[in-house]
Amino acid sequence: LRATVLLLSWVTCNLRFLIPGLALLLGGVPSVLAVWPQPQQIRNSAERYSLSARAFLFKHADVSAVRSGCDVLDQAFTRYFTLIFPESGGGGTGDTGADPFTVEVNVAEGPCDGYPAEGSIENCKSENHVHCCVYMHSWNLILNISGLESLSQLVEQDDYGAYYINKTEIEDFPRFQFRGLLLDTSRHYLPLQAILKTLDAMAYSKLNVFHWHIVDDPSFPYQSRKYPDLSKKGAYHPFTHIYTQTDVRRVIEHARLRGIRVLAEFDSPGHTQSWGNGQPSLLTPCYRGDVPSGTYGPVNPILDSTYVFMANLLKEVTSVFPDSYIHLGGDEVDFSCWKSNPDIKAFMKKMGFGSDFTKLESFYMQNIVNISTMLNRSSVVWQDVFDYHEIIPKDTVLEIWKGLPEEYQKELSRITKAGHRVLLSAPWYINHISYGQDWRNSYTVQPQNFSGTEEQKKLVIGGEVCMWGEYVDATNLSPRLWPRACAAAERLWSDEVQTSSVDQAFPRLTDFRCRLLRRGIQAEPLYVGHCKNEYQGI
Amino acid sequence: LRATVLLLSWVTCNLRFLIPGLALLLGGVPSVLAVWPQPQQIRNSAERYSLSARAFLFKHADVSAVRSGCDVLDQAFTRYFTLIFPESGGGGTGDTGADPFTVEVNVAEGPCDGYPAEGSIENCKSENHVHCCVYMHSWNLILNISGLESLSQLVEQDDYGAYYINKTEIEDFPRFQFRGLLLDTSRHYLPLQAILKTLDAMAYSKLNVFHWHIVDDPSFPYQSRKYPDLSKKGAYHPFTHIYTQTDVRRVIEHARLRGIRVLAEFDSPGHTQSWGNGQPSLLTPCYRGDVPSGTYGPVNPILDSTYVFMANLLKEVTSVFPDSYIHLGGDEVDFSCWKSNPDIKAFMKKMGFGSDFTKLESFYMQNIVNISTMLNRSSVVWQDVFDYHEIIPKDTVLEIWKGLPEEYQKELSRITKAGHRVLLSAPWYINHISYGQDWRNSYTVQPQNFSGTEEQKKLVIGGEVCMWGEYVDATNLSPRLWPRACAAAERLWSDEVQTSSVDQAFPRLTDFRCRLLRRGIQAEPLYVGHCKNEYQGI
Repeated sequence: LRATVLLLSWVTCNLRFLIPGLALLLGGVPSVLAVWPQPQQIRNSAERYSLSARAFLFKHADVSAVRSGCDVLDQAFTRYFTLIFPESGGGGTGDTGADPFTVEVNVAEGPCDGYPAEGSIENCKSENHVHCCVYMHSWNLILNISGLESLSQLVEQDDYGAYYINKTEIEDFPRFQFRGLLLDTSRHYLPLQAILKTLDAMAYSKLNVFHWHIVDDPSFPYQSRKYPDLSKKGAYHPFTHIYTQTDVRRVIEHARLRGIRVLAEFDSPGHTQSWGNGQPSLLTPCYRGDVPSGTYGPVNPILDSTYVFMANLLKEVTSVFPDSYIHLGGDEVDFSCWKSNPDIKAFMKKMGFGSDFTKLESFYMQNIVNISTMLNRSSVVWQDVFDYHEIIPKDTVLEIWKGLPEEYQKELSRITKAGHRVLLSAPWYINHISYGQDWRNSYTVQPQNFSGTEEQKKLVIGGEVCMWGEYVDATNLSPRLWPRACAAAERLWSDEVQTSSVDQAFPRLTDFRCRLLRRGIQAEPLYVGHCKNEYQGI
Repeated sequence: LRATVLLLSWVTCNLRFLIPGLALLLGGVPSVLAVWPQPQQIRNSAERYSLSARAFLFKHADVSAVRSGCDVLDQAFTRYFTLIFPESGGGGTGDTGADPFTVEVNVAEGPCDGYPAEGSIENCKSENHVHCCVYMHSWNLILNISGLESLSQLVEQDDYGAYYINKTEIEDFPRFQFRGLLLDTSRHYLPLQAILKTLDAMAYSKLNVFHWHIVDDPSFPYQSRKYPDLSKKGAYHPFTHIYTQTDVRRVIEHARLRGIRVLAEFDSPGHTQSWGNGQPSLLTPCYRGDVPSGTYGPVNPILDSTYVFMANLLKEVTSVFPDSYIHLGGDEVDFSCWKSNPDIKAFMKKMGFGSDFTKLESFYMQNIVNISTMLNRSSVVWQDVFDYHEIIPKDTVLEIWKGLPEEYQKELSRITKAGHRVLLSAPWYINHISYGQDWRNSYTVQPQNFSGTEEQKKLVIGGEVCMWGEYVDATNLSPRLWPRACAAAERLWSDEVQTSSVDQAFPRLTDFRCRLLRRGIQAEPLYVGHCKNEYQGI
């Protein structure tokens, strides 16, 4: 009887077969049907179907390449059952109903349990199906999890607490493959729970890369197997303020189950003061006149021991973090200490670098990127590395973090012209707070709005929301991230034209923020108003 | 054996018998001995005494006017035992030890259980005592609770978790009698727990007036006995987003036990849109040309029914809120609706107000202040009421909320010259956030730095931190309040000269913030760093 109630079809390619005028149609969608980020195609009707936890079932389509026993999908079913029916206590898949409302899931291609791969999703086909109740077709597992997220956002509760869903058709795929969020666990230590909760909210917003800026000047919380002194002497506290190997594995696993990659950053040669505590010969001794001043500068780029250490450390890091990318930093290197050091000066002379310390920095970064390449990893580095004209492998991704739109747009042009892929984070440093609705600025960013060819535009693989930690720790992380980070999440997922109006986004984001609250995410309000279920975690 | 370990003496008057150069001495106090806000006199030494929850006792001095059975003090003992020994589980007053460390408390004058009165503490004497362990002398109960707070802040834990206290002498009293904090529960509803938690942190910071801006345009959450429709139709939700009479009593009681007054604000004639839902004839109908437009403006000041309603409402409010003051608002009245209404125009003509609508506003506010006077309450109103030259009783307190220092200093001069007492809140609208350490701006405010006589300066009775609710609800209230509100708390409590350096305040506030965290207050970091006990409430 409930046949063909819904069609949710996740298409994994960039085929554009939008109905003309869809953006206008969307304006008329009741706010209760909001899905954030906005799907590529969503068609809904006023037809409404009651749902009950006692008669609701996820099942695998007979033709699905991924079946029961696949942990990512099995756990997603359990998780989304609880998210859809938060009052059910999460007691299973509710298959006790005589005539259950069935969500039939078809994943066209395996494998099941892989780590979420760098997105390469151009090669696909769309299919037609006839369905019972809800039919979700997706090309791969990760997109299927995104689909479950959208489905869960379509379920509403009426004033009496009864669940329902409106008849809706969705076809969806992300605009950019890399939708990142950076957390900084060095300036302040973030307890494991804060990271896991962030991953939850990332999944709700369809952000898919957790950029873990794990160490920096102030502290080194990563507990290395090879160099345990780094955290023992470089963390804020050697036991309470570190990430053990178990902690790191939990983060990666929690992310993997939600379709999120973990991109670890070990930033050097600058931003490494805390490294020096546990690895004494690593940093450059600064000089006052002819004598060491007792302070230290960036990593010492002229010693063989530096590269032995970095190779060992990165070898460990690549064994711990399965992602095919590693972030090598390379930003904001202060040359004053190098300039003061007689050994460095002698090396500069020997190498013919003159007084151009950017050449020394390039020399260092080339070596580090080469280590990464030898470890079978592609590198992400901050834009500084490109600005100093290092010879870097073509597969290195540059991350743009500096400047106002005019400046970062020029940088987008320059870097893509050189054939490198880029990530944009400059307009999304949302640790910078201001009074009022600053999410609007994040929302109106246009990552491909720069001077360049179509080929260049395609080299923009996505962007990142950055939450640097100078003024942020577990006390204020969540309300500063959410829902402000959601603005960039929609910009990176949704169609540019359909989401051109920030005013139309406002009521949808207001709704989505209430949904985040309902899911226990401490998401702050956008403006005056209320949610049916206010935050209870006081 | 432990005789005369500590002398903590709370002196309740403004006698200035500071040792010359004390401010310099304080610079050398180890940060572990920080008390926030800075006491008027604190002398400490390196002598350190171990404490244990199993051998720690609060007792009443034989001569104390307040003894066992006084709920404020009994509950303060219980509360501070747990705050001093957070790991003890709060299992009592620890009088099982054979040779307990005793805190002997002498309160010179009763009564015991009164509601915290408006501070009138000039008339006092200081006394000398010889003591066993800790002797706290205070003129009244409220100052004694402040004393217990300071004592609790002197207790530290070493790296092995053992508690200790250094030998310290304190003499203390507040610089200003009114140290307020405003919460806005109309723009967003704040769950009861959020308010109670705020009161806890206020007590830790020695803020002593909770200004409850309980209703406003967006919602009317106060559930009135006399006019239940006000919340039934004016709250965001008639059951889940209201404050019942029981809720209000809990807030007042929670505050009373912590020495905090509750100043209720029922702001009119503007800021009353939500009132109109449940009291249809109250607001002024706006006109478009000759016909009502269907929208409403401020309270209608020309109807007798308005004043009957306001008298009834305020009569109820004064029966619910025991404070001798009531806040009547009076800010930001928009005249455009009044101007459009033919009945109002006729009334203006009849009264000879010409086209000066400030006279109509004055007329209204005079009536409301008179109602308050008849109900035996003094009034607090926003500065607008003075700016429009109403004839207001001399005991009315004006609250300055507008402008940059130059402007609010002029207003301080003007209002105090007219003989009115003032509260300063203009520089402490800390709902306005910005990137970085904006607490420094709050800290450097000098409330008595304006052109005027000594008599005028004395009319500055204090100030208020305001947390307006446009962008704030339970999700971000605590981290936005704490520790930012602590800057104003110290400015309002401590000696101006001793606390003239914001840089010296920084490490003390950093310490205090960690103490707030330890007590479960979600206080955000000031800058890069860590706390021994990070926030666990994720």
